[in-house]
Amino acid sequence: MTTDSPVSTAYTTYHKGAHVNTNHKAHADGLVHFDHATEPLYGAETTYQENPELYQTEWVPKINAYRQAIVDAIPKEYLVPQELLAGVDLDNDNFNATLIPAKVLDEESLKITESTATELVAKIASGEYTSVQVTTAFIKRATIAHQLTNCGMEILFKEGLARAKELDEIFAKTGKTVGPLHGLPVSLKEHYYFKGRVTTGGYVCNLTNVTPEHGVTTLTLEELGAVFYIRTSNPQSLMHLCSYNNITGRTRNPWNTSLSPGGSSSGEGAISGMKAAPLSVGTDIGGSIRAPAAFCGGFGLKPTTHRISMAGGVGGGEAAYNTIKEGVGCSMGPMANSVEDLELFMKAYLDSEPWVAKDQQLIPVPWREVPVPKPQELTIGIVYDDGVVKPHPPVVRALKEVAAKLKAAGVNVVEWESYEVYQVAEICNVLYDYDGNYSSLKKFSTSGEPLAELTKHALKFGKGDYSLSVREANFYVNSRESYRQKYQDLFNSRGVDFLIAPTYVGTAPKPNTVHYWGYTSLWNLLDQTCVTFPSRVFADKNIDVKDVDYKPRNEHEEYEYNLYDAEKSHGSPVGLTLVGRRYTEEKALKAMKVIDEIISA
Amino acid sequence: MTTDSPVSTAYTTYHKGAHVNTNHKAHADGLVHFDHATEPLYGAETTYQENPELYQTEWVPKINAYRQAIVDAIPKEYLVPQELLAGVDLDNDNFNATLIPAKVLDEESLKITESTATELVAKIASGEYTSVQVTTAFIKRATIAHQLTNCGMEILFKEGLARAKELDEIFAKTGKTVGPLHGLPVSLKEHYYFKGRVTTGGYVCNLTNVTPEHGVTTLTLEELGAVFYIRTSNPQSLMHLCSYNNITGRTRNPWNTSLSPGGSSSGEGAISGMKAAPLSVGTDIGGSIRAPAAFCGGFGLKPTTHRISMAGGVGGGEAAYNTIKEGVGCSMGPMANSVEDLELFMKAYLDSEPWVAKDQQLIPVPWREVPVPKPQELTIGIVYDDGVVKPHPPVVRALKEVAAKLKAAGVNVVEWESYEVYQVAEICNVLYDYDGNYSSLKKFSTSGEPLAELTKHALKFGKGDYSLSVREANFYVNSRESYRQKYQDLFNSRGVDFLIAPTYVGTAPKPNTVHYWGYTSLWNLLDQTCVTFPSRVFADKNIDVKDVDYKPRNEHEEYEYNLYDAEKSHGSPVGLTLVGRRYTEEKALKAMKVIDEIISA
Repeated sequence: MTTDSPVSTAYTTYHKGAHVNTNHKAHADGLVHFDHATEPLYGAETTYQENPELYQTEWVPKINAYRQAIVDAIPKEYLVPQELLAGVDLDNDNFNATLIPAKVLDEESLKITESTATELVAKIASGEYTSVQVTTAFIKRATIAHQLTNCGMEILFKEGLARAKELDEIFAKTGKTVGPLHGLPVSLKEHYYFKGRVTTGGYVCNLTNVTPEHGVTTLTLEELGAVFYIRTSNPQSLMHLCSYNNITGRTRNPWNTSLSPGGSSSGEGAISGMKAAPLSVGTDIGGSIRAPAAFCGGFGLKPTTHRISMAGGVGGGEAAYNTIKEGVGCSMGPMANSVEDLELFMKAYLDSEPWVAKDQQLIPVPWREVPVPKPQELTIGIVYDDGVVKPHPPVVRALKEVAAKLKAAGVNVVEWESYEVYQVAEICNVLYDYDGNYSSLKKFSTSGEPLAELTKHALKFGKGDYSLSVREANFYVNSRESYRQKYQDLFNSRGVDFLIAPTYVGTAPKPNTVHYWGYTSLWNLLDQTCVTFPSRVFADKNIDVKDVDYKPRNEHEEYEYNLYDAEKSHGSPVGLTLVGRRYTEEKALKAMKVIDEIISA
Repeated sequence: MTTDSPVSTAYTTYHKGAHVNTNHKAHADGLVHFDHATEPLYGAETTYQENPELYQTEWVPKINAYRQAIVDAIPKEYLVPQELLAGVDLDNDNFNATLIPAKVLDEESLKITESTATELVAKIASGEYTSVQVTTAFIKRATIAHQLTNCGMEILFKEGLARAKELDEIFAKTGKTVGPLHGLPVSLKEHYYFKGRVTTGGYVCNLTNVTPEHGVTTLTLEELGAVFYIRTSNPQSLMHLCSYNNITGRTRNPWNTSLSPGGSSSGEGAISGMKAAPLSVGTDIGGSIRAPAAFCGGFGLKPTTHRISMAGGVGGGEAAYNTIKEGVGCSMGPMANSVEDLELFMKAYLDSEPWVAKDQQLIPVPWREVPVPKPQELTIGIVYDDGVVKPHPPVVRALKEVAAKLKAAGVNVVEWESYEVYQVAEICNVLYDYDGNYSSLKKFSTSGEPLAELTKHALKFGKGDYSLSVREANFYVNSRESYRQKYQDLFNSRGVDFLIAPTYVGTAPKPNTVHYWGYTSLWNLLDQTCVTFPSRVFADKNIDVKDVDYKPRNEHEEYEYNLYDAEKSHGSPVGLTLVGRRYTEEKALKAMKVIDEIISA
């Protein structure tokens, strides 16, 4: 690789932080001295004031232009005919959008989009399908998905088809694929840098942020043969387990469009739930892969940090923009409709050894082949309650039904006694905001945009706008490490291989309501492997009756438990999460395969 | 493993930080809230005042008792006869202690102690030697080493022999070894927790710090069959590239007892240089393995962080004591007299998979077998000057002679253009002290002990006693990551596999003089693999003449370059350092083997 290769250009783009940030003091001795003190980044105020005038005059026009570009890029001929939506109020009705594609799509497109990514790459590689055929099918279905859920944040259908055509020509000429994902349409969460495109991460100020190169993972997937055809929505600041941002508004849940798809990988959850993407890519620092996967009925893997590169994205891995925060690590990982497809992503990605030349932060652990365990070889702990907020009735029932099926199949099922979850969640909340919300407040103040309700909530996490001293922060960092060790000791001493736990207190909630992250953020602070999966159980208002006599143990439980609405939840999929130890993605996916076969039977 | 196994006890001992530190506020809701604010640790003042009265009355007696215990534990019959030292002033004469053992030791002890660790474990495992034989030989030589260099900080000869006897009995009974290090004497740097012993890390206040369990690496080595017979010296606060502490004073350099052995693994450098330990274990956050190895003529490996466990040691890995600082990571690694022995340690250690149950911070990368490269397959960059401080004449000559030999052997040798070393070193200095020296000042204030000159120097690094805010610290953390990526890009774009660089500006310096760490700390901040090795070149006052006309480029160079004293340095070994990429310890040791064969020929 030479310095001026696109690859190395990409990295210097993301990683020239030292130069961007250096306060160059050319001393007499000719040495360049490093100092943050007069670094302009540190001049900004730390409390946020909305600026309606600035916002209206400078930014709202940019928002409107951005929205219009999405409308213009939608192929009208693929839209759902109005008669099928007559009298439907998507935002308020319990409307199940997942039933629509079968009524609209041609037979071939339906067949293709109902296939797994693993099946599709095999059929493209064998010449049974062309990438253009497959991409066209997903463009048709993605048009429907966007129309019904508003999952798209940037539409790249034209570009995707052009790329598919290119790949088909290479295959026709050489008889070879460019990589294990040759010709496969892959949807991308919007906040990863995309070459030559605007990348916002849900921040209005970023509507002028044209990123010159792909993020490292985007680039890697492209080199593996992926076809990018859509970038999907994420909420303002990326810190909601929900979807609202001031640029494209809210995203709807495919199973009930009046409910939330979860977040922050909101669009990825929705497009995957609509089967309008065979493979999707999310990021997760507090539940952002797991919540959307669970609420939208799909699978999602949150790997241990530093296995998949975060380099080159708004809100993470931006050394050049000073936003790497190490208190809690963010993970990137795949979302899909089958376990096999999660493994397809991980194996293809890690076999390319991105740690050699793409991102020095990655640990050099290739994809390790491990055997599929027999049910009898698995000991799984079930988490019925984290000791802070009792899960809603459909979730408790799903845990019991899954436990019963696993037990019947020979799995050694035990009950997991939760351990100091509230303390861990509090440490996590402090570390989210331990820079006094500096990096996010700075972005908000650039546009003066109004703050969404859940943004206000997230900005109050931990110490809020107070920037901790390193001495104070080390208290939490040390406690984090202590809990990581304590949990490793607990897994060992209790002889448990995996846990099955709620992904959230309930099924898909009403928009902008989720406050408690403990069921997911626990595993971010501990940096353990998580696979979210559909329990095959659906909320049923006739069985999952709300316990009106339940006495909440604390304010969090009082708020969160009372969010349960049996009528609204009826028919929602219950997504649970398999929790493994650090760095055990290979074992977790093999165990997941066994569990999914058992509970699907 | 059960919760009450010694292993898990050990970890809860080190890792109960969350509990030790928690400010328990039993709220009405029954939840335990986490807060650092009233954490007693944060009450202490941040500027240090010596307290002579407290020190004299409470601590000096403890120091004297500690010293007496060392004297009492030395077997007088093994001491060097006075006639051999007649008229010798160890502290001021250019006295070469490495020549003494051959004049004193019996033939068998000499033969054993001149063997490599690899040879010894093989001979113990084959029954040719017993562990008692081998341990006795090293006890004899260690007695001489301590007498001449003051390398010992705690003498465990009795305990070592008892353990050796135990292992011999197991072997006699079962015909099996307990592990790959069965019966091998291993010396330990003093700051790792040792079960039931005082662990100081050079802090007087820690003379009452009896550590209930071994540190994780100590425990692991013991499980692998190691025999511990001596714990060796480290300087006050562990932050000198030299040796002085108020408990045992200074340690001498084996090759010239009036010079420094380097530090902070001072005693390990000296005992290894005296061949009084077949395998030693150092830690390195700024050069603490490499400087002693270089100054004492041995080999030392500074691995990438999180390959060897730091859990359970003063000044690092102490979650329970709030001293984990993540700005710059500390590495533990082996020191020895051959490349093979470094590999023996790494392979034995990593094959035991300590990441499964011992330390969750370790990355799960086992020892990977890689082929020994042909000289023609290696491209090595030579660092003649880091652009800040020009190396002393013996070091420059060693670099040229090594480069010439490698070239002649077919290695592709290129000149490495140094890149922004001063900036990287400044970032590193800020991150060393970014908690405002809190964790060290707190320890000093407990005893009121006087500060050593080099401690005062280290406390002034970066922002000194000013505790950065997280927001300020993130500037340096982001810049660190940028430089790590930049250096990976440089290695790739320049097509270089390894660098050979000075370990320090010069050979072993006079005590308490080293101020500039750039040649070593650069690789700590970048977290790259380093192997320090003897160049087989020795300083020669007749060849390595000081350039009196040299015009220093800056204050650092003016100070450091002028430390060169051709007379004093005469006969000192020049230790250089092989620098590899992150996580490439396997490749680095194989390359080191090839290089050592070439330059030793």
